[in-house]
Amino acid sequence: MTDTPSSPPCAINVRVRYAETDKMGVVYHANYFVWFEVGRCELIRAIGKSYRDLENEGIGLPVIEAHCEYKSPARYDDELQVKTWGKLLSPVRVEFRYEVTRLSDGAVNAIGRTEHAAIDERGRPCRLPDYIGGLLK
Amino acid sequence: MTDTPSSPPCAINVRVRYAETDKMGVVYHANYFVWFEVGRCELIRAIGKSYRDLENEGIGLPVIEAHCEYKSPARYDDELQVKTWGKLLSPVRVEFRYEVTRLSDGAVNAIGRTEHAAIDERGRPCRLPDYIGGLLK
Amino acid sequence: MTDTPSSPPCAINVRVRYAETDKMGVVYHANYFVWFEVGRCELIRAIGKSYRDLENEGIGLPVIEAHCEYKSPARYDDELQVKTWGKLLSPVRVEFRYEVTRLSDGAVNAIGRTEHAAIDERGRPCRLPDYIGGLLK
Amino acid sequence: MTDTPSSPPCAINVRVRYAETDKMGVVYHANYFVWFEVGRCELIRAIGKSYRDLENEGIGLPVIEAHCEYKSPARYDDELQVKTWGKLLSPVRVEFRYEVTRLSDGAVNAIGRTEHAAIDERGRPCRLPDYIGGLLK
Repeated sequence: MTDTPSSPPCAINVRVRYAETDKMGVVYHANYFVWFEVGRCELIRAIGKSYRDLENEGIGLPVIEAHCEYKSPARYDDELQVKTWGKLLSPVRVEFRYEVTRLSDGAVNAIGRTEHAAIDERGRPCRLPDYIGGLLK
Repeated sequence: MTDTPSSPPCAINVRVRYAETDKMGVVYHANYFVWFEVGRCELIRAIGKSYRDLENEGIGLPVIEAHCEYKSPARYDDELQVKTWGKLLSPVRVEFRYEVTRLSDGAVNAIGRTEHAAIDERGRPCRLPDYIGGLLK
Repeated sequence: MTDTPSSPPCAINVRVRYAETDKMGVVYHANYFVWFEVGRCELIRAIGKSYRDLENEGIGLPVIEAHCEYKSPARYDDELQVKTWGKLLSPVRVEFRYEVTRLSDGAVNAIGRTEHAAIDERGRPCRLPDYIGGLLK
Repeated sequence: MTDTPSSPPCAINVRVRYAETDKMGVVYHANYFVWFEVGRCELIRAIGKSYRDLENEGIGLPVIEAHCEYKSPARYDDELQVKTWGKLLSPVRVEFRYEVTRLSDGAVNAIGRTEHAAIDERGRPCRLPDYIGGLLK
């Protein structure tokens, strides 16, 4: 993480499910994006709202870009920590950054980034609510 | 398949994805239910409609019961055939039965069954449209 | 649950991920089988071993039958409790039963059952270790 | 696609499964990475080998980096085309690029990229076999 996103990181643990492994014996790479989703939802919860609330207010945050670098494989039953940072890119765009580490040895499994556009119920770009924007500024 | 569902079976092939395997080296068991979904959607398509049409008409067919017996493991890259039969249980309920076999050797991988209730857009039970009911009777 | 499995139930909570929902707005039915997996792994952990240990000892417990009845839909961000019971069916077979309920209102979302055969590293049936058998008898 | 990967593109169609949608009514973003996997496996098949063969020869190609830009949402039952290009980055690294388009209207749903390191059965970096390297050079 070279730059410094302004939100304090939010951490949540996930345990690797059997369903999330593949025949290589490690976690299938696409599942990290699911954990990133868990991470950013927890970050939004940490600032006093849930992503469900956001949707109920008619605002969606679809992913418009996703990136992940895989550092060392996570394995079945590993307990992992997902750390998430958020940063407002513009009044209608937000970026989240993630770091997944294994609790037992601190190994970094992956680092990632997703970018999201705020949209209203008709799918048109809209401003992020102030309570999100203010906290991720 | 002991009894005889009245619809002719519909067959569609799926190839096992890496994502669908687990660390045991075979297909993770829950994925068969996804292939069953592929099978019954193809069966509905075979009678001239798509499940998407059905939803656009305001009718949903949520799964209310699901069952699968695993006979022999499917593996990565196997080409499988999903055969599906449909049967009307009542004006508001339908049952589908499935058989998954490997094309290369005819091995039966799994047999299954799902039961569905027709619901309208408010989630209340509703009659299946005649074009479905008539064909699965 | 009509009969009485002899293991005390084990409970673990899961929160519904966005990835686990479908366009009907509720949890896609196959994902309950993944939560059942989470439940039985926690039950094995509760008796002092992990399923990972079991595999490291050369024993696998593939699912040979799976069943689920869906009672009321779970939704995104719901916190659910998965209760699991285990029962030895024979020296080489074990059954787990599951109940998934929503924490906020106690609604039962689903009840299910899986049956498993113990196999050794060559895929041949083998006896379950005593520490499993003894506790689930 | 700014630069020109030297392999001719390989195209394969996938139809969006209900399981792949989420409550936003569109495809959950992580599933595109699964289709990318389908695409690159088909590309390897097109050059006369399967990824399964590669693994049987003791070579794995784990993903070390993955990226996706989402252009327009794919929906349930859409038939999509996944086009894949491959390019050798070094004797031990390969890159694949992807474009997912909807067949009905040609809309681009997503473009992506994955990078892979060749490893042997002990997990150590190894040279890609000549038949892969030669074709993707």
